[in-house]
Amino acid sequence: MPLLVVRGIKPEQMMVISESLIEDLAVICECELDNFTIECLHTTAVFSGKIVESFPFIEVSWFERGQETRDRFARTVANHVQSLGIKEIEIAFNTYREDSYYVNGSL
Amino acid sequence: MPLLVVRGIKPEQMMVISESLIEDLAVICECELDNFTIECLHTTAVFSGKIVESFPFIEVSWFERGQETRDRFARTVANHVQSLGIKEIEIAFNTYREDSYYVNGSL
Amino acid sequence: MPLLVVRGIKPEQMMVISESLIEDLAVICECELDNFTIECLHTTAVFSGKIVESFPFIEVSWFERGQETRDRFARTVANHVQSLGIKEIEIAFNTYREDSYYVNGSL
Repeated sequence: MPLLVVRGIKPEQMMVISESLIEDLAVICECELDNFTIECLHTTAVFSGKIVESFPFIEVSWFERGQETRDRFARTVANHVQSLGIKEIEIAFNTYREDSYYVNGSL
Repeated sequence: MPLLVVRGIKPEQMMVISESLIEDLAVICECELDNFTIECLHTTAVFSGKIVESFPFIEVSWFERGQETRDRFARTVANHVQSLGIKEIEIAFNTYREDSYYVNGSL
Repeated sequence: MPLLVVRGIKPEQMMVISESLIEDLAVICECELDNFTIECLHTTAVFSGKIVESFPFIEVSWFERGQETRDRFARTVANHVQSLGIKEIEIAFNTYREDSYYVNGSL
């Protein structure tokens, strides 16, 4: 962690920003680059009787780091995504509990 | 938001109900139609050594709106899904925190 | 429920362990085999400018069952996954609220 689960942005687009984005986020989180995961979900969006483009959305799963870090993290993700020419991006944070996160079966 | 993440129901099936479903949910939530997103995940279900059909399941992510609205929302989603001839549908709600939801990098 | 949402492990791999895994988990949870769902998400992981293999990760969604059951559940999942020759596996638990989980539109 942190883990970024992406919808509505293609892997080929995320590839372009992935290196600089993770470098910036590692500074904000004071952790190593290889703690980060970016996963693009394969989805099909539906609206008003039609298949439509998925709205760009990133859900970040991590341990709670407080409002200031979260604000900087979200601003940084949005800036990088918008640098791709994507105008709108929504980001939600999902907090895992430390007593409920296991690496190889251990807390 | 609200966001409906769907498994085990095809996009072609969700297309049939998407317009009337979102109209009904917009009344319940007292919000605009274009606040809603329906995303069908591409998944493969496994059970007892075999690949099986995914069980119909919808996870709703939104801000907390209270039990009464949640009950009406779930009943409405279930009715529309069952109108497709799908007999069983489970629905879980996932609440985002307002201090953790960002539009274009801002709360 | 419980529901296991899998990334970075192929359905063909999960098929191999699905039967014995669910039998063991049903004992731990004291519930029926057919309460369990295993869903493999289709995703594409991105890291450092490239598409990469997804890291093996399972998110378990269920109702809260306490630390001891959670520990046993995680250890059991990890053991089964590692029996496939997968060395590293991370597991996170996501707790649904009982007032927010609907079967066919009813709590």
